[in-house]
This record gives sequence, C-alpha cells and structure tokens, in this order.
Amino acid sequence: MNPKIGDLIYAGKAKDVYETDTPNHVIVKFRDDITAGDGIKCESLVKKGYYNSVISSKFFEILEESGIKTQYIELIKPGYMLCKKLRMIPLEVITRNIATGSIVKKFPFHHNQILNPPIIQMDYKNDVYHDPMLNDSITTALSLATQQELNNIRKITFKINNILKDFLLEKNILFPDFKIEYGFDSHGNIVLGDEISPDTCRFWDLKSWEVLDKDLFRNGESNVMDAYMKIASLILNNEDKEKWNISHILK
Amino acid sequence: MNPKIGDLIYAGKAKDVYETDTPNHVIVKFRDDITAGDGIKCESLVKKGYYNSVISSKFFEILEESGIKTQYIELIKPGYMLCKKLRMIPLEVITRNIATGSIVKKFPFHHNQILNPPIIQMDYKNDVYHDPMLNDSITTALSLATQQELNNIRKITFKINNILKDFLLEKNILFPDFKIEYGFDSHGNIVLGDEISPDTCRFWDLKSWEVLDKDLFRNGESNVMDAYMKIASLILNNEDKEKWNISHILK
Repeated sequence: MNPKIGDLIYAGKAKDVYETDTPNHVIVKFRDDITAGDGIKCESLVKKGYYNSVISSKFFEILEESGIKTQYIELIKPGYMLCKKLRMIPLEVITRNIATGSIVKKFPFHHNQILNPPIIQMDYKNDVYHDPMLNDSITTALSLATQQELNNIRKITFKINNILKDFLLEKNILFPDFKIEYGFDSHGNIVLGDEISPDTCRFWDLKSWEVLDKDLFRNGESNVMDAYMKIASLILNNEDKEKWNISHILK
Repeated sequence: MNPKIGDLIYAGKAKDVYETDTPNHVIVKFRDDITAGDGIKCESLVKKGYYNSVISSKFFEILEESGIKTQYIELIKPGYMLCKKLRMIPLEVITRNIATGSIVKKFPFHHNQILNPPIIQMDYKNDVYHDPMLNDSITTALSLATQQELNNIRKITFKINNILKDFLLEKNILFPDFKIEYGFDSHGNIVLGDEISPDTCRFWDLKSWEVLDKDLFRNGESNVMDAYMKIASLILNNEDKEKWNISHILK
C-alpha cells in the first residue's frame, strides 16, 4: 500500500491525523512533542515520534494477533501509521496494576501497592474541565457512552491488560499502568485507537524497577529518549529492528 | 422507651453518637453546628439540631413505611434520635435529579439541567483526602464495599429517591439532590443511616425555585433557619407539629 497523505483533520498534543485517498483510512503522524502536567510542560524530543510509532505498532500487532480489534493497519514508515478512521469516544481508559502516580495522591493506596484485580478508571478527555475522573452514571448522563458500551470497554480493557502484561513480563518489563482510548469504526464496532507507548504507559525494568517511560520527562530527567529506545529494543524482534533501522542505534 | 444516654462514641461535624443501655441502640444528638467548604466555614445556628432531627425523623418514617430499612427507631425529643447501631460504610452517596453545585463546576452539565435517570455519585468520606469521588473499581480496591454491596446501595438509593421526590413534590418542594450514608446493622443488612435534612439535601420551592437548604449558609445568607423551619412546616402533619411544638413558631 502506498496511501497519499491528505488534509489534516485533527491535531492532538503529540499526534496529527490526516485524511488519505481511502475514505475510511487515516494516517496518524507521531510528532516529537511531549507534554506533561495538563499540557503546561511542553518540549520536543528528537525521534520520539519515530520510536513511539514503532512501539505502538508492535503493541497493536500483538493485540490484533490475540483477537483485539484495533485501528492499526500498518506502519508506513516510522512516525507514520496507517489506521482505520474512528469516531473517538472522549474517554481516557486507565488501567492500574500497581498503585503509583495520581492514584496514590488522591486515594489512600500505598505507593507500589499491587492492584489485583487491576483498577480501571475512566477520565473525561476534556481540556476545559481538565480531564476529570468519571463514574458510569455521569458518563451516561453526559451521553459519552451507553452503559453497555462502558461494560464492553471494560471487558476489552481487561483483556488488553492481560495480553500486554504477560508479553511485557516475558521481556522483563513491569506494566504498572497505562491509558488507552477507543473509538467506533465505520461498522459501529468499539475499536482500540490512539497509541500504546512510553507516553501513555508506565514501564519499569522488572529487576531494577528503573523507570522507562514519560515519568522521566515529568521528573525533568535527561535520559528520556534512552528509555524509549530501550523499550523499543526490548519489545521488537530482530527482524523489526532491522526493518526500522533500530538495532544499530541501541547498545 | 426511655433510653439512658451513655458514652460518646463518635463526634461528627454536626452530630454526636452516644451509647445507650441497650447494646445495639445509640442516641444520635443533632448539634447546632453547621459547616461548609470542607469544614472551613463553621458556625452555630440556634435550634438547627432541633429542626434537623425532626425533619430527618419524618423522612426516615416515610421511608420505613415504604419498606426501606433505616437506622431510625424514634425521636426521643427534638435533637435526640434513638437509632440502631450501625457499622457505617465510609461513602457519601449523592443522588442528583437536577444539575447544580459541584457537578456543574466539574463537568459540562447546564445549571438546572434535569437528570433523568438521576446521577448517582459516591464520594469517599475521608477528611484527609478531601472526600474524593470514587468509581466502583477504586471503591472495591480500597475494600470500602464489595461490588455486590455497591449494586445493592444503588438499588436502595434509587428507591429512596423516588419515594422522597414524590413525597416532596406533593408538598410543592423540588428535590435537586441529596447525600445519604449507609451502614451495616447487627444482622449484616445494609441500612440507611446518618440524616436527611436541609444540611444534606437541596430543597427548592416548586414555584419560586427559592432555596430552602444549606446553600443559604454556603452563600452567606442570613435566613438559613427560616428555610429549615419552612421545610419542617411543609413536610410535617399537624399532629407532628403540635407534638414537637413547631406550629406556633411558624407563620
């Protein structure tokens, strides 16, 4: 496939979405911008979009192989992902296997407390209202999703968590939490969209508990891209690494 | 019954709970203290405890007649309510029929938007964490209640809302929202506890939409007790008014 990039239809904090010459397909461009703290902290990191697109593609491929419907069609080249066009549901669906970050500030969980079953939290993706946490009653009253859709989203999210947690554990990576977003495809199916990357997940080294995600940026560390590259290196197989020209960069 | 008041076992922001000479019974003393803004604003209003106890008793009686299990046994005298001893569940269960107050600040509801079905929201009763809003996943992870108990609480709460909303409508009072709390009785039943009063409910005059609840205090108005007395006058029958010496006070 060699899809033509068309008009910009959506610009997010770290990704742009473009039309293509196929009506139900879009190209998602992963930018190098990185933000934190409700968008207050904002920088650009060379090749971040490159790595996040490669990492996201790998996760989408794993999920598709396990029967999860995703927006992913193919990685055209690093930074440019061909996807199904989705009507996005404005929910940030957060799954937590280990308590850390905002949850330990807002509620009396111990830092690093194991959460089994995991906690699922849905925040309203709304900049004006600063992404407030929802409950099902408020979500349905705001007509963001029906109760049946919410139940379905939770069911799919638990499956995704299990698939990715097991995959990452094999690669010696802990998976404390992650944020995903869903949308409806042209047939009305609930489909996983957005991205799965160190921007939207917490990844910790299994042995050292070394942080390998955007928390490094939030904390003002200098080695953010080293961590993103390490995640790519750990999860990609040799064929992928060669294809995307990653192997020679990494130690 | 003439129960003896025993040791103080709990002191809340506006009520004290005392032991009695019967093991599973307590006396709830309704104090005149009134607080707002997470306890920052705090005053004392003469006879507030008197009226709130009479109003709460009336609502508990109505609910008991409709088959809802409550802590209420009898009003010993205004201000002093004999109750079943409950092991309280630390949840503030909020039901909203009309969007007003915090919900319109946190989420894009219109002020005075009718919510049908009503919104049910559960906040964690925890001063240290400033009563944060919960979802079922967090509530069960914190072991505050099981999923089954939460489903049960929601079912009972919907019933309570319907009973009180209909009763109040007959008295020309709108019922925009209210907060209730539940506990377990000695048999492990989920039982309505706490109070139902202008401290914990919003009441609006059906025709004028005049505010008849604690919002007057929150807004620094001077006529708080007039509103509380008006609510008592509107919901009590003549017999109750005479019994509690209320009729002569009200215009």
